[in-house]
Formats: sequence, C-alpha cells, structure tokens
Amino acid sequence: MGRWQPDARGRLAQAAAELYGERGYEATSVAHIAERAGLTERTFFRHYADKREVLFAGASELQDRLVSSVRDAPPAIGPLDAVALALETTGPFFEELGPIVGLRQSLIAANPELQERELSKLAALAEALAAALRGRGVGDPTAGLAAEAGVAVFKVAFARWVHNDSQATLAHTLRESFAELHRVTAAQEPHPG
Amino acid sequence: MGRWQPDARGRLAQAAAELYGERGYEATSVAHIAERAGLTERTFFRHYADKREVLFAGASELQDRLVSSVRDAPPAIGPLDAVALALETTGPFFEELGPIVGLRQSLIAANPELQERELSKLAALAEALAAALRGRGVGDPTAGLAAEAGVAVFKVAFARWVHNDSQATLAHTLRESFAELHRVTAAQEPHPG
Repeated sequence: MGRWQPDARGRLAQAAAELYGERGYEATSVAHIAERAGLTERTFFRHYADKREVLFAGASELQDRLVSSVRDAPPAIGPLDAVALALETTGPFFEELGPIVGLRQSLIAANPELQERELSKLAALAEALAAALRGRGVGDPTAGLAAEAGVAVFKVAFARWVHNDSQATLAHTLRESFAELHRVTAAQEPHPG
Repeated sequence: MGRWQPDARGRLAQAAAELYGERGYEATSVAHIAERAGLTERTFFRHYADKREVLFAGASELQDRLVSSVRDAPPAIGPLDAVALALETTGPFFEELGPIVGLRQSLIAANPELQERELSKLAALAEALAAALRGRGVGDPTAGLAAEAGVAVFKVAFARWVHNDSQATLAHTLRESFAELHRVTAAQEPHPG
C-alpha cells in the first residue's frame, strides 16, 4: 500500500476493495467489510452511505479541488490548459492509493451499476469544470467543449495509466494524452462551417 | 410531429413522451402509455422491455450505423474525421423525431436514473467507435482519444442543438463544435512530455 496510511475510513475502503476482489461485489455485505476491517457496522455507516459509495469515496473532495484549481489558474492560461493542469494535480492522490486503484477499476468495468455511477461522477465533473471556466469568463460552447474534452482525455489517460506496468506517472500519461488529442484534432480536415 | 410517421412502435414512443411530460416519468405506467397510444400492454412489451427503454429506442441501431460509417469511410480519412462524419449522419434521424427529442432531453436531465442510462449508452458508443477505428488500423491511444473526444463533441453539440431555437441543423452544429474543439486544442501550450 506504499505511503497509504489506513485510518478507520481508509481501513474500511481497503477491506471493501479486498472483499469485492475476493468474493465479488454482490456477495459482499457491509457486515463482511466491517469485520475484515476490525470495526463495527455502525462505524462503517458513519463513513459511507452504502457499499457502493466506498468505491467513490473522495470523489466530491477531488471535484472541489479540481474546480478550485481551474478557478485559481493564472488569467493568461487558456481554457483547455486550465483543465489539463487541474487534472494533472490528481496524480499524487491516485498514486498514494496504490493497488486499490487498479482493483477498483476492474470492479467498475465488471459491474454495469458501478459503471453507470462512475460515468455519472465524470459527467458531473465535466459540468463543474465547465462552470468554473465560465467563472473565468470563458464563453460557450468553448467552456463546455474544453471541459468535456478534458474529461474525455482523463478517461483515456487514467485507463492507460492503471493498465500500464510502466513507471510513468498519471500526470505524464495525461500530458501525453493531451498532446495526442492535439495531434488528432490538428489532423482534421477543415469543413465548411 | 412533422414528417414523423407513427406506426405502433412510434405511437407508443410518442404516447410515452407525452405522458412523461404531463405527469412525470415516475407516475406514468406502461398501462397509461398503451392506453394513450390506443394499443394493448401486450403490444407495448412486444416493442419495449420497460418504460425506460422507450426513451432509448433506436440507440443500438444508431450505434450500428455509426460503426459501419466509421468502418466504411475512405482509407485516406483521418480518425477524428471518420468519427465526425459518422456523427453528422445522425442529423436526419433526430430531426425526423421532431419535438420528442427536446422532451426526451429534459426528462433525462431531470431524472438521475435516466441520466446514468444515457451516459452509459454514450460510453458504449465511444467504445464501439474506438473499436471501429482500431479495425481501420488506428493504434492506441489515438483510437480511444478520437472516439471519446468525438462523443464529447457530440454531447455538447447535441445539447446546443436541442436548446437552440435557430434553424441550424444538427450536422451544422456538430461541424461548428468540431471546429471549436480544434481551436481550443490549438490554443493549448505545448508541455514537455
């Protein structure tokens, strides 16, 4: 788990991830998770609303942090750069979580209900980032496009980073993916508007 | 409804859209929908699995058509162009549906369960388009990025087109939005990889 320091909340998250991996998500109950973490069910419900939310813990704090980062970027920074720089700051957050990130990703990929939840969080993130760009005076459709394109790049880069055995950081993989988006759009034929 | 020709399937879709708008999605039952369409519940279930699926009718045929369009694009067409040209062909499909499209969009926006379903269909579309690009010899991450970015542009352009009272076609709004993505990425500062 590397540098990850498990407190009650963290121990529950780790126990849940382990059990979901061992028995499957459906077959794991809150009682199992609490038992594995050496805590009570009551403690579980103090930290998480249900067994699904364990997998999305920290998502709203992360979104708030990304929104602040876009809002506070220097005025000269363009919209897609503001989004890209914000997304790059998530690197240490995911890197500290260690192997749980990969386990979580496989669980989500295997369960349509969790997948819908994940997509919904990403869509909410795109909307929040678009709103932050509008707050910087970026008009529409630019704000919406920069936010949605940024989240699309994040989705692709995150999946690459999780499945990649190389030592590349998430921030590096994100920079490579934004550069690739640049190449792919630069290669597009101009259409008559 | 303009040029829309209602058969049994179409009458059920229109009745559902009307009732969802009038009473809300939750308060509408399959019995109500069948009654409004002047058909039996049995007929409803011959066409749709449940009341949610009425709103996503045609999605898989549309996805198949988009995938064929990417697959059959001339070899010289680049990845994002192949995706953009495929997406533009959806214009007449949505334009023929008429006012139902706007009603459907508001319903989805107001109901988290429907929203998750819509996002899940869009994510499946992006995956199918990425696979079609790989079938054309496009490598990764280019295939994934072009598909995800294309669907991101579609999301933004579709919302603009639905909410816009102007006479611009969906294809035109899509072309404008792809041009805007091009501008937004061209303005990005190059980062050291």
